Amino acid sequence: MTAAAQLASVLDAGGPDLACRLKGTEVRLSEVAGSHGDRLAGHAAGTLAAGGKRLRPMLVFLCGGTGGHGPLAAAVAVELLHMATLVHDDVLDQASLRRGRPTVFAAGGRHAATATGDFLFSRAFAELASTRSAAAVSALSAASSALARGELMQRADAWSGEVTSARYLERCELKTASLFSEACRLGAILGDASEGSSDALAGFGRRIGLAFQILDDVLDVSGPAERTGKHRGTDLLDGTVTLPLILARDRDQELKRMDLRRAVDGPGRAEAVCERIVATGALEDARAEALRHVADAKDGLAALELPPGRRMALDLVADSVVERYA
Amino acid sequence: MTAAAQLASVLDAGGPDLACRLKGTEVRLSEVAGSHGDRLAGHAAGTLAAGGKRLRPMLVFLCGGTGGHGPLAAAVAVELLHMATLVHDDVLDQASLRRGRPTVFAAGGRHAATATGDFLFSRAFAELASTRSAAAVSALSAASSALARGELMQRADAWSGEVTSARYLERCELKTASLFSEACRLGAILGDASEGSSDALAGFGRRIGLAFQILDDVLDVSGPAERTGKHRGTDLLDGTVTLPLILARDRDQELKRMDLRRAVDGPGRAEAVCERIVATGALEDARAEALRHVADAKDGLAALELPPGRRMALDLVADSVVERYA
Repeated sequence: MTAAAQLASVLDAGGPDLACRLKGTEVRLSEVAGSHGDRLAGHAAGTLAAGGKRLRPMLVFLCGGTGGHGPLAAAVAVELLHMATLVHDDVLDQASLRRGRPTVFAAGGRHAATATGDFLFSRAFAELASTRSAAAVSALSAASSALARGELMQRADAWSGEVTSARYLERCELKTASLFSEACRLGAILGDASEGSSDALAGFGRRIGLAFQILDDVLDVSGPAERTGKHRGTDLLDGTVTLPLILARDRDQELKRMDLRRAVDGPGRAEAVCERIVATGALEDARAEALRHVADAKDGLAALELPPGRRMALDLVADSVVERYA
Repeated sequence: MTAAAQLASVLDAGGPDLACRLKGTEVRLSEVAGSHGDRLAGHAAGTLAAGGKRLRPMLVFLCGGTGGHGPLAAAVAVELLHMATLVHDDVLDQASLRRGRPTVFAAGGRHAATATGDFLFSRAFAELASTRSAAAVSALSAASSALARGELMQRADAWSGEVTSARYLERCELKTASLFSEACRLGAILGDASEGSSDALAGFGRRIGLAFQILDDVLDVSGPAERTGKHRGTDLLDGTVTLPLILARDRDQELKRMDLRRAVDGPGRAEAVCERIVATGALEDARAEALRHVADAKDGLAALELPPGRRMALDLVADSVVERYA
């Protein structure tokens, strides 16, 4: 099944309310992005809406139900936070295109794009404050602190030959899994779940977030570019040491001794390093690690009392993370 | 009286509790900045602490009292938000020094500095969430949205010959007065002030924030560099049209017709434009505008019931904004 078909089946399992609330999320995202009297944040919403799967809002609704103001506000807030980080990433990467459309950076320059990211970030908290739940605000700020810490860790570890699998997973927790995890927790909090259920649902989000990031990193090495929309080996060119390289270093002494910065310096050289990683079989093991997290995620739901449609939809979301890379 | 002496007299009027709470703010700022396992945010706190007057935390305490956890959390939050914007500004300006010490940008590069700003931003909201006051979170997100909108407006209006005084003041409201205003409101909210008092205190903050920004813009034109710590005319070089230039354009037809971008292009040319602005007498009128806002700020307090020490201290804060530029 394709990832798109998989997500369509999530919507089926989640019922008409889920589809309706996701539409409501789109409407509110446009309103918020257009509310600052400048065309750029609206532009940001437009660009980021193009092809966005809205996985994080979906998790909020599936963990918290679709009724009331709270889950909608939280769904909008997590997506705004996600958008804010993408806008800042595009400034740092000087990226001109995202999902085939001009980035805010390309349209407005780095000052305006940095401010647009900050604006979207602020609006995420404003949106959540409307729920009047301090626990929800704490959950969002935990996620956003983690995202920033993950980015700092990534820069600190750039080009390093010493990054272990454990250190890599810690970074994935911070830069990706935290927002998936807190999206689930926000849904649970605002759906009045017990603390035990909230923790279990947050754990589900965390595990699929880890799987998501690992598979993203596998794809950067495996390519092909026509499927991923970016060149192979962009992480390597950036000095970002990911699980495929870490595992491959354990199997190939020449890779282990290699100075990454020098190895990728020159046309076609990052692709050559990718091929060398592929040859070690490291990608299969990295994929297996991701699948373990997905299986754990689904196992963790087993003990929870959930409406059958919601459980099925959450299982399908977990599968969609894998399907994306099948 | 010097600005430093003026602030010392604020501390006298505010009493020993105020000084003690400001010390507590410093301690908590260091803790928060050091809490992410990376040296950079700690570095940010160190750099920004050097010479920082902590005006915004002071306003929180003077508007809300010094008792309890709420005002301290709010004081820390407003200063973290302020620090976050300074760290991002330094990335955008590629500034290597702030208050005589290396910036986070200089120490860690733009990726790490952007992430550090985002981290400080997140921690501001986390800190405030600990008060469990949704109104407080709304106030902080209103301020941070306004800061970002102000920056966007400034970029949109850069180099323009059409910026009016009204448009300029609107920008000052967003990029400066909003945080002063919300600092006062946060103090009031967490000090359980009535809605009327909160609005009045927020109005006080807004007016001194406007005065602060206008006088900052006057100083950029008047110099001298040895007092301000930066070159004359940096706003002009950036294309930022401020009140002195707007008022001067009304008096000097040649300034009005001048293409700003071309006029400042070349060594010493921004200083020459500054001299031309000074010659019109526009600086006196801009200063008078700032003084009007300070007088309005103090008048607005008259109707409020406030402990005498607090009223005196707030009056002195208002005066210190002017003294800074005397």
